[in-house]
Amino acid sequence: MGSKRSQAESSVQHTPMRWWGWGREGALPALSAAALGGVAERIGLDGIPTPPVALEHVVVAPPRIGDAAVAALRRAVGEEAVRLGRRERILHAAGKGYLDLVRMRAGTPEGAPDAVLLPRDENGLRAALAVCARHDLAVVPFGGGTSVVGGLAPLPEGHAAVVSLDLARLAAIRLDTESRTVSAGAGLRVAALERELAHAGLTLGHFPQSYEYVTLGGCAATRSAGQASSGYGRFEEMVIGMQLIAPAGELSAVGVPASAAGPNLREVIVGSEGSLGVISSLTLRLAAAPASSRYEGFVFEDFEAGVATLRTLAQDGPTPTVARLSDEQETELSLLLAAGGGIARRITDAYVRARSGSKRCLAILGFEGSELDVRVASSLAGGIARANGALPLGERAGAAWLSSRFAAPYLRDELLTQGALVETLETAGTWSCLCRLRKAVGGAIEGALRGSGTPGAAGCHISHVYDSGASLYFTFLARRLPGSEEGQWRAVKDAATDAIVANGGTISHHHGVGRDHARWLEREIGADGIAALCALKARFDPDGLMNPGKLLLSEL
Amino acid sequence: MGSKRSQAESSVQHTPMRWWGWGREGALPALSAAALGGVAERIGLDGIPTPPVALEHVVVAPPRIGDAAVAALRRAVGEEAVRLGRRERILHAAGKGYLDLVRMRAGTPEGAPDAVLLPRDENGLRAALAVCARHDLAVVPFGGGTSVVGGLAPLPEGHAAVVSLDLARLAAIRLDTESRTVSAGAGLRVAALERELAHAGLTLGHFPQSYEYVTLGGCAATRSAGQASSGYGRFEEMVIGMQLIAPAGELSAVGVPASAAGPNLREVIVGSEGSLGVISSLTLRLAAAPASSRYEGFVFEDFEAGVATLRTLAQDGPTPTVARLSDEQETELSLLLAAGGGIARRITDAYVRARSGSKRCLAILGFEGSELDVRVASSLAGGIARANGALPLGERAGAAWLSSRFAAPYLRDELLTQGALVETLETAGTWSCLCRLRKAVGGAIEGALRGSGTPGAAGCHISHVYDSGASLYFTFLARRLPGSEEGQWRAVKDAATDAIVANGGTISHHHGVGRDHARWLEREIGADGIAALCALKARFDPDGLMNPGKLLLSEL
Repeated sequence: MGSKRSQAESSVQHTPMRWWGWGREGALPALSAAALGGVAERIGLDGIPTPPVALEHVVVAPPRIGDAAVAALRRAVGEEAVRLGRRERILHAAGKGYLDLVRMRAGTPEGAPDAVLLPRDENGLRAALAVCARHDLAVVPFGGGTSVVGGLAPLPEGHAAVVSLDLARLAAIRLDTESRTVSAGAGLRVAALERELAHAGLTLGHFPQSYEYVTLGGCAATRSAGQASSGYGRFEEMVIGMQLIAPAGELSAVGVPASAAGPNLREVIVGSEGSLGVISSLTLRLAAAPASSRYEGFVFEDFEAGVATLRTLAQDGPTPTVARLSDEQETELSLLLAAGGGIARRITDAYVRARSGSKRCLAILGFEGSELDVRVASSLAGGIARANGALPLGERAGAAWLSSRFAAPYLRDELLTQGALVETLETAGTWSCLCRLRKAVGGAIEGALRGSGTPGAAGCHISHVYDSGASLYFTFLARRLPGSEEGQWRAVKDAATDAIVANGGTISHHHGVGRDHARWLEREIGADGIAALCALKARFDPDGLMNPGKLLLSEL
Repeated sequence: MGSKRSQAESSVQHTPMRWWGWGREGALPALSAAALGGVAERIGLDGIPTPPVALEHVVVAPPRIGDAAVAALRRAVGEEAVRLGRRERILHAAGKGYLDLVRMRAGTPEGAPDAVLLPRDENGLRAALAVCARHDLAVVPFGGGTSVVGGLAPLPEGHAAVVSLDLARLAAIRLDTESRTVSAGAGLRVAALERELAHAGLTLGHFPQSYEYVTLGGCAATRSAGQASSGYGRFEEMVIGMQLIAPAGELSAVGVPASAAGPNLREVIVGSEGSLGVISSLTLRLAAAPASSRYEGFVFEDFEAGVATLRTLAQDGPTPTVARLSDEQETELSLLLAAGGGIARRITDAYVRARSGSKRCLAILGFEGSELDVRVASSLAGGIARANGALPLGERAGAAWLSSRFAAPYLRDELLTQGALVETLETAGTWSCLCRLRKAVGGAIEGALRGSGTPGAAGCHISHVYDSGASLYFTFLARRLPGSEEGQWRAVKDAATDAIVANGGTISHHHGVGRDHARWLEREIGADGIAALCALKARFDPDGLMNPGKLLLSEL
C-alpha cells in the first residue's frame, strides 16, 4: 500500500452504564445541596427523593424467542454470544432519554429485547441477520446505548420477537498514518479510538456529550456532532468509507477522499439509524493532535451580541474549535446549578465576579492547533468579542467548561431523583432565522410547561457554528408529574417540535430522529422523501426487521 | 426573515457555445505555430488540418416527435418555449467530450433531441415533465452543455422520442447576506452568479475549467469540483438546500446548515445526473470575496517531493485555496504547448529560466483571504515547499496560470483541427495509494496508445487536495486514427479506468459518470449500490424517462 500501517486489536473494556442512568456504578454526586435546594425552590419540587428501584424489582417479561431460533442464533454467532439473562436484557432495553430513564427507574421499562447477540466479526453479523430473517426476529443494533430519542426501544412491531445486536466486539483498528485515516469496527468506542490515536499523535476530534460511551457506528448511524465539531467537523464529515450489512444486501462505500461517481450512498447509510441494516465498519479521516489549545470565557450583554460574534467568527474566521453561547435563561440556570460548589462552579465564580447587575450571556470560545495559530486566533477572536461588548472571563472559565463538559447526564440523574422533569432538545437554522427560532421554541417549551401546571425553567445555547447558521440546544426543568410523566413530556415535545418546524429549523441537529422525532420527519423531508427512504428500506430490509418503529413510521 | 435580502432577476445572456467546439464564435487561436509544430512532431501528426464541416452539412434526422406531443408541450410551456429548429437541436445534441467533438466536427452527431424545451419556471418544468410522461418522451436535462462524459447524449433508449430540457430560464437569484446563502434557479450560470455576488462582496468560490458556461444545476447534478475547491470546497459542500422535480414526485432538501434528521437525501440528488429528475433550484453557502490573493509557482525535483509538500499543506495547513502539481510528463507537455509564445507562455518562461537540466515538476500554490492570512500562509507554504527541495518561481508563474486557467478547452479545439486525439480523465485516491495509482493509470494510457499504433504523450497533475488524499488529472495526446476514432479512444479509456478501479481510485473525481463511466459504476459501488439507485429511480422515474443511458445502465 505504500503506507505505514499499524494493526491493533482494541482491548477496551466495554463496562456498561448503570442500568437506570448514566455513568459507571459509584459515580460521585455532582450537585451540591445548595444547588438542589435552589432548583427545588425555582421549579417547585417537594424535596422527597425518588431513587430508582432495585434491579430485582424491574418488571421484564420472559423472552418470547423460540427454542429453534435460539439454537439457530447459537449456531450462527456461538453459544456464549447469545445472551438471554435478565440483567443483560435490561441493560439493552432502552437508551438514555428522559422517558427511558423515568420508566427504568420506576422498574417498568416498556419492554426488553428477547435476546442480546454479540457477534465476533462481520461474518457472525451476517449469519445472525440471516437467522433473524428466517425466524422473523426484529433487530435493534446497539452501540454505546446512549440514544436520547428512543432509538433503542425494543419494539417487536408485529415480529415474532426482537433481539438487541450489540456491536461491542467489532472493534478492530487499522491505521493509515500517511493518509491520516483509520478503518475500524463500528462497535469501537470513540474514547477508545482516541486513546489509540494519541500514541500516533492523531485525533478524531469527536467529543459529543456522550463521549465516554458512544461508538463509531452509533455516531455514524445518528449523524452525531461533537462539542468540537465547529473545528473538526461533524461525524459524517469524517466518514470517507463504510460498510452496511443488511438483511437483503450490503453497501460498501469506497474510502476515497472525494468522488463524483454518482449519488453518494454513504450519506444515506449515515443517519439510517439501524433502519436499513447494520453499519459494521468505517474509515474515518483524522487530524493531527493539537500542539496547543486555549479555551476562554466571555460574558455578553445579550444573546444577540453573542450571536453577532459567533457569526463573524464562523463566516470570516478565525473558526473556533468550540463555540458555545448561552442565552440569559441558560446562564441563570447554570448559576443555579453551580450554587454552593459542585462541578460547574468555577466558570460561574468568574461570571459572578464579573457581573454588573444586568442579565448576561455566558460564552466559551476554544481554539486548538499549533501554538502560533492558537495564539493568533484567540487574540483575534477576543478582539471581535470585545468589539461586540463582551467582558472576557479568561482561561479559568474555559478550563471549568472543559472539566465539566461531559457532566450534564450525571446532573440529570440527580435531578431525576429529586422529582424533576429534565430534558434537552436541539435544532439548527440559518443565521437570519436563528433568533426568531430560539424565541419561538423557548416560548413553546415554557408555554407547554405552564399549560401542564408545572411552570419551569428553560434555557438555550448555541453549541455548533457553521458559515450559514448555528445549532440551538435547549435544556428545561420542571416539576415532574408522577403518573403523568409521559403526557407531560409529550406536551412539551410536541409544542417545541411544532415550533421548530414552523420556524425554519431542522427536527434534529445531532440527536437523530429515533422514535421521538419520527412523527415530524415527513414535515422536514416531505412525503416523497419518506417514500424515497421506504424504497431503500424495501430493497435492503424487505421484511422490515431492522430497528422497527424508529426513523420511518409508515413502514413500507 | 430577519435577514437583509435583495431580489435580482438574472439578466445573463445565455450565448451558446460554438456548436462544434468550445467558446464563442471568433475566439482567438491560443497555440503558436511553433507549439503546433512541436506537438505534431512529438506525436506524429501529418500536418493536414481537419476543420469542422459547415453547420449546413451536419446530418440530423427530422424530429420523431408527434404533432400531439408538440401541441401538448406548447400548451405546457408556451409556444416559443418549444424549439424544433435544426440549429437549436444541434446545439443541444451533445456535450463537449472528445467523442462528442470528433463526431460533431465531422457533421455526424449520434443523434439530436427531437425538441428543445425552455420552461419559464418550476411550474412550466412540472407541466413539461407531465407531458413527457404522457407521450413517452425521454428527457435530457441541459444546463451549460459542458459534460465531458457523455451526460447529454440524446438517447431515446426505446422511448417514442427524446427532448432536451434547457434550464436557462430558471435563473432567479435571492440573496441572504446575513446567512451568507443564495437561493437560485438551477439554470443560472456560475459566472453570472459570481458577477451578482461581487456587488455584495461575496463569492461562491467555484471555478471549474468550464466556469464560463457551467450552471448551478449542472454542477450539482455532476458533483463538480472547481480549481479552488481545496479552499472553498467541492460544489456539493456548498449545497445546503435544493429542489428536485421528478416525473413521479419531488424532493426538497431544507436549507439548514446541518441536520441529523435521518439519511441525507440531498446527497442522493447531488450526483444524480438527471437520472432521477430535474434539479430546479438550489440554496448555496457563500464566502466573503477575498481581500487578497497570492499565487506562486514552484518547481520540484520529482513528483514525490511535490506530493510530500501538498500532503503536509492539506493535513497540517496552511490549506491552499488552489494546489496543483504536474508530474514530469505534464510539465514537459506544458513546455511543448507554450513554445513560441501563446497562452501558457509566461509560466514556462520562468520555468525555463529556473531549469537546471534535470526533469522537474511544476506546481502552483494559491492562497486567498485577508491580507494577513495570505501573507502568513504563503510564507509558511513556501517554506514547506523549499524544505522539500522546491525552487520558487514567484508570482509571475502564478499570474500566468491564473490568466490561462480556462484555456485548455480552446487548445483542444486547435489540436483536434490538427488531427490529434486529445483527452483528459481524472480520479482520486488516498495519499498512501496516490503515487501507485498515478503510475498504474499513466502506464495504462501510454500502453493502450502504443497498442493502437499511436504512441502519444501523457501527463498528470494533482488538482485538488484533501486531508486524506488528492485527485489525479490525466491529459493525453496522440495521433487520431481517422475512421477508428471511437475504437482508439475506447481502448485507452478502458485501460485507464480498469487501472483506476484496480488501484483504489474512484472512477471520477469531478467529471461525473455519464455514459462513459457507467460500465464501471458497479465496480465502485457494488451490485447492491446499483440496486439502491435503481430502487430510487423506480420510485421517482418509473417509466425510465430521465436521461436514459447515463449513470445507470441496468435500467430498472
